Amino acid sequence: MISSPHIPDFLLPSGFQFTAVSAGIKPSGKPDFAIVVADEAASAAAMFTSNRVTAAPLTVGREHLRSSGGRVKVVVVNAGNANCATGEAGVAVCREVCARASATFGGETMEVFPSSTGIIGVPLPGDKLIAALPLAKSDLGRTSGHFDRFAHAILTTDTRRKVSARHFTTADGQQVKIVGVCKGAGMIHPQLVPHATMLAYIFTDAVIAPEALQALLGEAVESSFNRISIDGDTSTNDTVLLLASGAGGVTVDATHAEFREALYAVATDLAKQIVADGEGVTHVIELQIEGATSDAEALKVAKAIAHSPLVKTAWAGTDPNWGRILAAIGYSGVHIDPDRVSIWFGEHEICRNGGRSASFDEAAAHTYISQPEFRVRIDLGAGHGSCRFWTCDLTAEYVRINASYST
Amino acid sequence: MISSPHIPDFLLPSGFQFTAVSAGIKPSGKPDFAIVVADEAASAAAMFTSNRVTAAPLTVGREHLRSSGGRVKVVVVNAGNANCATGEAGVAVCREVCARASATFGGETMEVFPSSTGIIGVPLPGDKLIAALPLAKSDLGRTSGHFDRFAHAILTTDTRRKVSARHFTTADGQQVKIVGVCKGAGMIHPQLVPHATMLAYIFTDAVIAPEALQALLGEAVESSFNRISIDGDTSTNDTVLLLASGAGGVTVDATHAEFREALYAVATDLAKQIVADGEGVTHVIELQIEGATSDAEALKVAKAIAHSPLVKTAWAGTDPNWGRILAAIGYSGVHIDPDRVSIWFGEHEICRNGGRSASFDEAAAHTYISQPEFRVRIDLGAGHGSCRFWTCDLTAEYVRINASYST
Repeated sequence: MISSPHIPDFLLPSGFQFTAVSAGIKPSGKPDFAIVVADEAASAAAMFTSNRVTAAPLTVGREHLRSSGGRVKVVVVNAGNANCATGEAGVAVCREVCARASATFGGETMEVFPSSTGIIGVPLPGDKLIAALPLAKSDLGRTSGHFDRFAHAILTTDTRRKVSARHFTTADGQQVKIVGVCKGAGMIHPQLVPHATMLAYIFTDAVIAPEALQALLGEAVESSFNRISIDGDTSTNDTVLLLASGAGGVTVDATHAEFREALYAVATDLAKQIVADGEGVTHVIELQIEGATSDAEALKVAKAIAHSPLVKTAWAGTDPNWGRILAAIGYSGVHIDPDRVSIWFGEHEICRNGGRSASFDEAAAHTYISQPEFRVRIDLGAGHGSCRFWTCDLTAEYVRINASYST
Repeated sequence: MISSPHIPDFLLPSGFQFTAVSAGIKPSGKPDFAIVVADEAASAAAMFTSNRVTAAPLTVGREHLRSSGGRVKVVVVNAGNANCATGEAGVAVCREVCARASATFGGETMEVFPSSTGIIGVPLPGDKLIAALPLAKSDLGRTSGHFDRFAHAILTTDTRRKVSARHFTTADGQQVKIVGVCKGAGMIHPQLVPHATMLAYIFTDAVIAPEALQALLGEAVESSFNRISIDGDTSTNDTVLLLASGAGGVTVDATHAEFREALYAVATDLAKQIVADGEGVTHVIELQIEGATSDAEALKVAKAIAHSPLVKTAWAGTDPNWGRILAAIGYSGVHIDPDRVSIWFGEHEICRNGGRSASFDEAAAHTYISQPEFRVRIDLGAGHGSCRFWTCDLTAEYVRINASYST
């Protein structure tokens, strides 16, 4: 499995302080309130879920970014309660928490960016968050320990922190740092649009205007967070926020190749960590779809496979049952000629031109897909469209996690 | 749960004989080859899966119906092997079995309708089916015992036979009988089109021309088999066949109210039996979607809910977590105003205008959805479109059944 790297102090972009405290939202009493404070309001870009039901913090966060012209001084994130389907009262509580956060940490209320994750339809106890603000303030810091606490407090059913970092040096010897942190293990099929219960926060010390930042984020998200699925359930709270403090002094525009590459690397690394830590996941699968009539058609095929309970349970059982994959391709809605479809598990050809490959070796295929990470490559034989997509198996443990209900 | 009624002899439409034998396709040695022989070639209508990958028997069956002008003398069904993704060889084997069946039971080869269900991608041992034809012939009969053996032999992961019957008496005292039989427990989300691994066979003794029969079948299937989902996987082999022997002497056209009603009742009863016997199913849920801008939009919402692993696992855990339902509505692709959505579990109002209902009683809701069958009603508050849809929970047992693979 992909491990969570530790981010050493020297890789953290300057201009940001982090912390997390226990506000009493999670019944377990674990840290559940995570805060980032920028030294000076940072340039900001965000993307949110395309679900038509969206949580109160998304309404408020969108409004704040618009009012502030893309500036964020404080990020407040609570876990344990999604503040979704909570009506006008949910929006009012969110606004109040933002107002009190700006009073505590400085800046304007519209420079506070809120996020929530957890159960839907239960009123958020904003007073608990507000009461925890002074302790959070006394505890802010720039160390990897502080960053790790932030990364830990935003988790829900996740089993581990998800962080990623990249940096590069410019021609004149200046450093640009990018660090990302995210959470998410269930209700994961982010379909983020520019205006996304996965939460991801990426920080950089580059100098970037909000418009360029939004363009860079959109491009990175499309090939990373928008290319993963655990269960096909698109959340009401998904959010990706990218903040640029400018404290590093290097100016970056939307076409900056090294920055784009580093940002894409961080976003993809985080996205894959989410899949690897998905609820009950025992196998991570990279789907590589080729030969589609367009990239969009390739993506449709990838999603049909990634959302097929029969394909996903076969993977859980390390069963090289490629017929289920072929069936999912068949109902994906894409125009295909079954007689031109070929399937490989890694380097093992399984299906050729719609039928069992002459070289199909069931035992070898079984051994290959017994690995915790493997690749399924499909050639539709119809054109030049392609995509990469990351997904996982469906295990009895996923069902146990999501069916557990005690009265 | 819905029980499998026993069909007494006097409810079986005249003009048909039934049997089933063990041909050795199922590794268990259980009966796996089921045959119907009409006294005279019956008027026939069929619908097949919309999956673009289709099994050899669908290719051959479609061709035979076209050549014969909608006449079927013999139906041959094997379980244990889907004869899908088997290429030209699969089609050739299927043709050979049909040719030998017509030689055995009479009629033309084009009057033989073949079906297969079971694993995809493995060559069908047609010689075993052919070798079993003489025994099958010696064993044909018109009793409910013969019919039950047919119903039993077509099963795969099903745990019980699925049969249904309706009859009515015309104004001048004549009887019309309709009896149906089907199988299917996994890879169930039939999307049948007139030209579906669910197999269903419906027989009547009415006199009906093939064109009228096709119209009647299309109408009945749209509100029954096309309104169920176990796992969202649309099979490569789904087929519904309706045969009219004419032996009862009552002439029926496409607008005959009593026949339409009786046919719809049989089709709906069979469809619901499939859901109730779905792999690992512990709860059957009737979704009633109302207030959509169109019936098609209502259906989209029903399918998003029926295919959400999070909603289905909550049902498995009898968890009245309506937030997951609201999230699924939100990503269904339908234009909704979340603030107008209301949800009931039976008579219990759970969500009103997008938020928790003031009368929400979690314990009562939990008790209600602890029943083996329950209803979820959703009002989108947007128009007059509606639909009914039947689905089920997702249990660890479903995963166990489909992830079991022994090398």
